[in-house]
Amino acid sequence: MVKYSSRMGKMEGSAIRELLKLTAKPEIISFAGGMPAPELFPTEEMEKAANAVMEEQGQIAMQYSTTEGYPRLREQIVERMDKKNNIKTDVDHILITSGSQQGLDYSGRLFLDKDDIILCESPSYLGALNAFKTNEPKFIEVPTDENGLIPEELEKILAKEDRVKMIYVIPDFQNPTGRTWPLERRHAFMDIINKYEIPVIEDNPYGELRYEGDYLPALKSLDTKGLVVYLGTFSKILAPGYRLGWICADDEILSNYNKLAQAGALQASTISQMEPAKWIDMFDLDAHVAEIRKVYGHRRDVMLDTLEKTFPEGVTWTHPVGGLFLWVMLPENMKAQDVYMKALEKNVAFVPGDTFFPNGGVFNCFRMNYSCMPDEKIIEGVTALADVIKAEMK
Amino acid sequence: MVKYSSRMGKMEGSAIRELLKLTAKPEIISFAGGMPAPELFPTEEMEKAANAVMEEQGQIAMQYSTTEGYPRLREQIVERMDKKNNIKTDVDHILITSGSQQGLDYSGRLFLDKDDIILCESPSYLGALNAFKTNEPKFIEVPTDENGLIPEELEKILAKEDRVKMIYVIPDFQNPTGRTWPLERRHAFMDIINKYEIPVIEDNPYGELRYEGDYLPALKSLDTKGLVVYLGTFSKILAPGYRLGWICADDEILSNYNKLAQAGALQASTISQMEPAKWIDMFDLDAHVAEIRKVYGHRRDVMLDTLEKTFPEGVTWTHPVGGLFLWVMLPENMKAQDVYMKALEKNVAFVPGDTFFPNGGVFNCFRMNYSCMPDEKIIEGVTALADVIKAEMK
Repeated sequence: MVKYSSRMGKMEGSAIRELLKLTAKPEIISFAGGMPAPELFPTEEMEKAANAVMEEQGQIAMQYSTTEGYPRLREQIVERMDKKNNIKTDVDHILITSGSQQGLDYSGRLFLDKDDIILCESPSYLGALNAFKTNEPKFIEVPTDENGLIPEELEKILAKEDRVKMIYVIPDFQNPTGRTWPLERRHAFMDIINKYEIPVIEDNPYGELRYEGDYLPALKSLDTKGLVVYLGTFSKILAPGYRLGWICADDEILSNYNKLAQAGALQASTISQMEPAKWIDMFDLDAHVAEIRKVYGHRRDVMLDTLEKTFPEGVTWTHPVGGLFLWVMLPENMKAQDVYMKALEKNVAFVPGDTFFPNGGVFNCFRMNYSCMPDEKIIEGVTALADVIKAEMK
Repeated sequence: MVKYSSRMGKMEGSAIRELLKLTAKPEIISFAGGMPAPELFPTEEMEKAANAVMEEQGQIAMQYSTTEGYPRLREQIVERMDKKNNIKTDVDHILITSGSQQGLDYSGRLFLDKDDIILCESPSYLGALNAFKTNEPKFIEVPTDENGLIPEELEKILAKEDRVKMIYVIPDFQNPTGRTWPLERRHAFMDIINKYEIPVIEDNPYGELRYEGDYLPALKSLDTKGLVVYLGTFSKILAPGYRLGWICADDEILSNYNKLAQAGALQASTISQMEPAKWIDMFDLDAHVAEIRKVYGHRRDVMLDTLEKTFPEGVTWTHPVGGLFLWVMLPENMKAQDVYMKALEKNVAFVPGDTFFPNGGVFNCFRMNYSCMPDEKIIEGVTALADVIKAEMK
């Protein structure tokens, strides 16, 4: 009889992926996914880049490449991390992955044995939690407030638990809450990390998508002991279809990631690395990101305005200064799952929040995405959702 | 202090990948890699396919897609498995992976807990062994002869060991030996598998590259109990740079692979799936494979001829009827590693065979690839290698 590994008993299919199938019908106004707006993809320019790759380096593009990744792309990443995140590094400290998700998966496998403890923000990104679960760890959720992870709470946990193997955080425009850590929290966090010397996975998929205020330094840029592993991606600033992410880490840690990458998939797709690298050389990524920020920032405003106008008293939500998501908190006696079922009848979808808590127990929150619906759909969807919530509150 | 997971203590970087770096110098005649011949890549046609994808479906190509994979590509795979392997299946039983390597990685994670037993041919493909090692299993090597795995030996092991969780095999043109199981062995193997009901990973990257004799049915085509997981790939029949592989398995097993794929990388690159799918629709994969078979078959002949003419008595080698590799056995008192170091001084490279034995202990064999060197280099390299071996034998 076929027997699966014990990890399989703990794995569910991603609730979000299953839900996205449900919400793929064209009549659905979906705030559920986290997809970039496809109308902003530079398809014509990318065709030119693809042509250039095949004409200039076709045989290289179709051949095996190194596990580390395409050299020109790694150079571009190094430049960008310097310019955008104030992270000083070099190509030898960059490993290309098939999207950040693969970086998350390798992170769990690098640090976690069964029953080891991993810390994350409460709530945290579902896709990361699922990746880590394949190693059967125990999760401890670090309490958060409107400014993200609370350093004092982190220190309490670290002082007590000696089997903490890694900490997973999203300091900028967090998924699912949209919250951002202020500068002083970043410093306080790093002080604690340096004291306990625990590796940190800093996941920064949305960092460049800021709509107001000043950019804040990445944790990696404050890292003096080589404890921070930085995960970046082109999914939100260019396109997710190439599955292009990267890991930036210090020597020994990165060489261990490299071993996992060799065993896990050999390398990221060569063509998927070379086409975007050529596009970045031929066109203007900064201008493209500026355009994305304009559109998404506007959609965020539309969603926030409509929430303000239509949502009933007793419901609160976050006011993200960047990224793709905001987080709605219903009164504690309400269940987001119930609202979800009713909303779906009205052709509106979001992601109920309970799955973002690895240890469960929170049922009154949900996540809303504002990046991939046009204004009128956002207004229509939020208004319909407000009616559903009001009806449920009675 | 940073502490890694216990699996990291068992992982080495792939000897082959490290070695390929050493042998990347242009003056080296390398029989070490397993790379397809890049001069056969249809780069001009692929540029046309890439254009068509971006013009017709650019936004889809740059967006997230499903974990299962691009529907048209899965249809093409189903047709091809029917035509080439006599495997009757449908798109619901196909999951696209980032190369077969990812399928191997997911396979280990699906079935193996720490200290579980996995069976493989002795010797077996290093990349697979490395993938499985991340789960810290115990390997038992099933003895083989010139016709591949010996069914009676397999049965002896299964009768004795009750913690066998999976069996990994390459019945066609095996890596590293180039050996192929005859039909009666395939039936005998499946009889034993059906009796013990152990899942089988059938890895078939080279199956279409047969240079003589008749195609033999895949184990999956003989599978009546849904125990065989079939791994296919476009790396050797089209190009490896797209990292395109697939898993074909029965319902429950495939749904579990899907969970691992969601957690591991979400999906394979959308663009890397759509460009080859479009190429297959626009051009002629069968004609392309015929061309590859002609070239590689000829190179195999050149290598076999030169081995026959130059290698000293006491050295034997396999005569593969397909695939990319042959296997050389030196006298038992010789070490392939010593020959390797001397050969490298003469600018000739191959892969010493010890790493293909998960439990080690065999040092007198090595693997040679004949697919990516032109005739004159094969003759020159084999002749130089013969001289090195003769000198070492003295």
